[in-house]
Amino acid sequence: MPRFTARQLAQMVGGRLVGPADVSVQNVRALELAGAGDLAFLRTEARKDDARRCSAAVLVTPQELEHYAGTMIVCEDPGAAMAAILAAFAEARFPAPEGITRLASVSPSAVLREGVAVGDFAVIGEGSEIGAGAAIHSQVCVGRDCRVGERTILCAGVKVHDGCVIGSECLVQHNAVIGSEGFGFLQREGRQLKVPQVGTVRIGDRVQIGALTTVDRATLEATVIEDGAKLDDNCHVAHNCHIGPDCVIAAGAMIGGSVRLGRSVILAGDVAVKDHVSVGDGAIVAAGSGVHRDVAPGEVVWGYLIRPLAEQRRIFALLGRLPEMAQKLRRIEKELDALRRRPEGQP
Amino acid sequence: MPRFTARQLAQMVGGRLVGPADVSVQNVRALELAGAGDLAFLRTEARKDDARRCSAAVLVTPQELEHYAGTMIVCEDPGAAMAAILAAFAEARFPAPEGITRLASVSPSAVLREGVAVGDFAVIGEGSEIGAGAAIHSQVCVGRDCRVGERTILCAGVKVHDGCVIGSECLVQHNAVIGSEGFGFLQREGRQLKVPQVGTVRIGDRVQIGALTTVDRATLEATVIEDGAKLDDNCHVAHNCHIGPDCVIAAGAMIGGSVRLGRSVILAGDVAVKDHVSVGDGAIVAAGSGVHRDVAPGEVVWGYLIRPLAEQRRIFALLGRLPEMAQKLRRIEKELDALRRRPEGQP
Amino acid sequence: MPRFTARQLAQMVGGRLVGPADVSVQNVRALELAGAGDLAFLRTEARKDDARRCSAAVLVTPQELEHYAGTMIVCEDPGAAMAAILAAFAEARFPAPEGITRLASVSPSAVLREGVAVGDFAVIGEGSEIGAGAAIHSQVCVGRDCRVGERTILCAGVKVHDGCVIGSECLVQHNAVIGSEGFGFLQREGRQLKVPQVGTVRIGDRVQIGALTTVDRATLEATVIEDGAKLDDNCHVAHNCHIGPDCVIAAGAMIGGSVRLGRSVILAGDVAVKDHVSVGDGAIVAAGSGVHRDVAPGEVVWGYLIRPLAEQRRIFALLGRLPEMAQKLRRIEKELDALRRRPEGQP
Repeated sequence: MPRFTARQLAQMVGGRLVGPADVSVQNVRALELAGAGDLAFLRTEARKDDARRCSAAVLVTPQELEHYAGTMIVCEDPGAAMAAILAAFAEARFPAPEGITRLASVSPSAVLREGVAVGDFAVIGEGSEIGAGAAIHSQVCVGRDCRVGERTILCAGVKVHDGCVIGSECLVQHNAVIGSEGFGFLQREGRQLKVPQVGTVRIGDRVQIGALTTVDRATLEATVIEDGAKLDDNCHVAHNCHIGPDCVIAAGAMIGGSVRLGRSVILAGDVAVKDHVSVGDGAIVAAGSGVHRDVAPGEVVWGYLIRPLAEQRRIFALLGRLPEMAQKLRRIEKELDALRRRPEGQP
Repeated sequence: MPRFTARQLAQMVGGRLVGPADVSVQNVRALELAGAGDLAFLRTEARKDDARRCSAAVLVTPQELEHYAGTMIVCEDPGAAMAAILAAFAEARFPAPEGITRLASVSPSAVLREGVAVGDFAVIGEGSEIGAGAAIHSQVCVGRDCRVGERTILCAGVKVHDGCVIGSECLVQHNAVIGSEGFGFLQREGRQLKVPQVGTVRIGDRVQIGALTTVDRATLEATVIEDGAKLDDNCHVAHNCHIGPDCVIAAGAMIGGSVRLGRSVILAGDVAVKDHVSVGDGAIVAAGSGVHRDVAPGEVVWGYLIRPLAEQRRIFALLGRLPEMAQKLRRIEKELDALRRRPEGQP
Repeated sequence: MPRFTARQLAQMVGGRLVGPADVSVQNVRALELAGAGDLAFLRTEARKDDARRCSAAVLVTPQELEHYAGTMIVCEDPGAAMAAILAAFAEARFPAPEGITRLASVSPSAVLREGVAVGDFAVIGEGSEIGAGAAIHSQVCVGRDCRVGERTILCAGVKVHDGCVIGSECLVQHNAVIGSEGFGFLQREGRQLKVPQVGTVRIGDRVQIGALTTVDRATLEATVIEDGAKLDDNCHVAHNCHIGPDCVIAAGAMIGGSVRLGRSVILAGDVAVKDHVSVGDGAIVAAGSGVHRDVAPGEVVWGYLIRPLAEQRRIFALLGRLPEMAQKLRRIEKELDALRRRPEGQP
């Protein structure tokens, strides 16, 4: 179990200490559950009242609180402080694997740089190169002629097809698949003629790929995921896509072939993007959307068929008024009829 | 091959025998395909006519049929009888694995209780405990310090991350992932700052998790799936969710972070639930719905943006009448115009 | 690296050579990126101008181009030519595995026909039979009593449950699951009573199953996927489905229980099909659709609740005019009111 003093934590995040500096914590817990020996976070002032009642030994907070009894670490950005502190706890709680187990199958022609860890029943194919400090967990399969960058982690069960390239400091989560064959068929005489996909996948640095996510290889060139992009679980990136740097793609995204996402695009949960669509830098696609057309840089869109967010909201509200509108139409028709029949000279 | 006599089956389900008791069956088949040596089920009277023509040796039926030639097992609840009988056939058809293969990697510090089976190339990490009679199939990876309950089955390729807890009599299907890292990022200066997830997953008893389903671990505490909940294939349960007892979640559900489902909630196929939403006990969400707001206990909702089922149905029907409504509006405008111009004193 | 001369390639596809026949290529590249030593494809005349500027050594083209400097292979169907040529490159780039590794676990009672390859840490269960030339990649698990046809490829991590049958020349991609248990439950006294699924999965010849796709086994009989059907990644085929020959099912399809798809049905990306629905031969379901009702042969449907494509398009266009329609209604009501109040004899 990790153990940190309030002083250590404050130094870690550049925070101001209020209260005893030597109190130590072993655990990070939710505000309402934290007790002695625990650290908690108050990330926004909205929960200030909960924080006052909090029994955590140490609290990271954006401002000094009057009625809180423990030690405070006052930080300008408690979110960022939380990220840094959790990284320290994560390292202690989920220790990195070490060494190369004798139960793995590593090709004699594979190159494993310094400090690479390889788990049980992992396979590393001919000519592949694994960067220094990378962790290839149990039951991972890295095909032939792959490149995996420094300090990248491939979690248990990940499969990387021949020739794929993954950068440094990436995290590819359990059972994800990199480099499966893109879905390319031509219809000829009622049958499907397969177009074999001879391209590859190229993933940049600091990319995260969620569990059970597929990234298909390109037809000829490369399906590309640029530096810093983050993909959640159960997503699909089809052949020939280009995902820009620092994109955030939440769970369940189905991204069609040859789609281009610019820099820092956000796809909220369960979004589908049609083949060949282009989404501009910084665009945001709200949850559940179907992106059937290009999206301009910075545009915020939503809907089964996307529209600008505000417009779509209005339409959805009006859908709820459709029954009333239909009724009004019926009433108007009757009244018009009555008016039309009204003999002149009578009210 | 299993072989059961009509007498054995009738006893198994507490049914009343009509016809020869010693006839035996080796197979269970669909009503229209069953023949000599087969058992069939008539679950509802709706298919009574099919049952009369059925050539099955034995038929489980809610009532005695006049023209059926084989042996009948008359049961008040043929569905429940079917469940019991199929369990017996399943045991014979898919025999449980036995013993601990020498091709697995079991940490010396792991504790395997009596009757645990471990398949080829499975990994069980340091300090993990596997309950009596549990089956850890081939290529499963159970991390460090996990708990797997009695008689729980982890099918081939399942991955369980360090520290996760799975109860008794659970079934986790092939290649499912328990305890992948939740998707937590803060945007800072256009980049994604990772919030490491140091929590865990806690799954109760009699839970079923489908193939290729992900259950992410919590940020600080636990993502919880309570006793008796059933999740289908290709689902995603994000970090910090709480899935209540006896929920039924059909395939393709994408459940956002910190979602709470009450007791016996039903999500039909392909439902998405937004972060932080709460769904009350016994609520039913129809197929394909997007749950963007809380759902009251017992509420039945549907739609891209959910609404009460009846309301949504009316709206969908009216959508089909939109072209007609638009036309009416045009006609009304013209008529109004004509009326407005109508000189006084003329029809 | 493969190397083909223009003459070899022209023979391979029955094309007409224009230019030097002995020039050779080692790589296939995109039209705009190809250079010396590369082959490129001009599939439609739409990109004729790009092709003229193309520096590829060899170009496959539907017609002779005036200003292109390299060797042309003129083909009536450049798409089909591309498919054939890419197959040759794929074979060279992704060489088939050979032999049976000593790191696999093959049951003594399993039958492996001539030329079967088995990768590291693969498992082949009792009584299973693997057809000649099939490739069982690393970490695949084939259960007991399965049949895998000739030249079929099971990519790394695929799991096939006991008793399933896969035909010849199939490709099942990484971590896909064949034969997971169908999702069958009856509600009894607020709890879920499991209906064990004792059926199987039967897959025909030339079928492709995408990475991370699940095909559940049937309750009693077989979930069937007929010859030539192609399924993309992250799809789900529930118990008792029958997928007709030559269907094309794009990524993310969620196909409910007992669904029947006819011959050559196309489901575009992210389609959901409700339990028990029937889709006729040659029907096309557009992307993102929810198929809640039967679809006639040849019908083209679309929408959250499917409708004929043209009708749905009109409705979606009218949705954008809902705000305007609501406004018109308000104006009409006012005008009517004014008309109704208009005293006789005044304009």
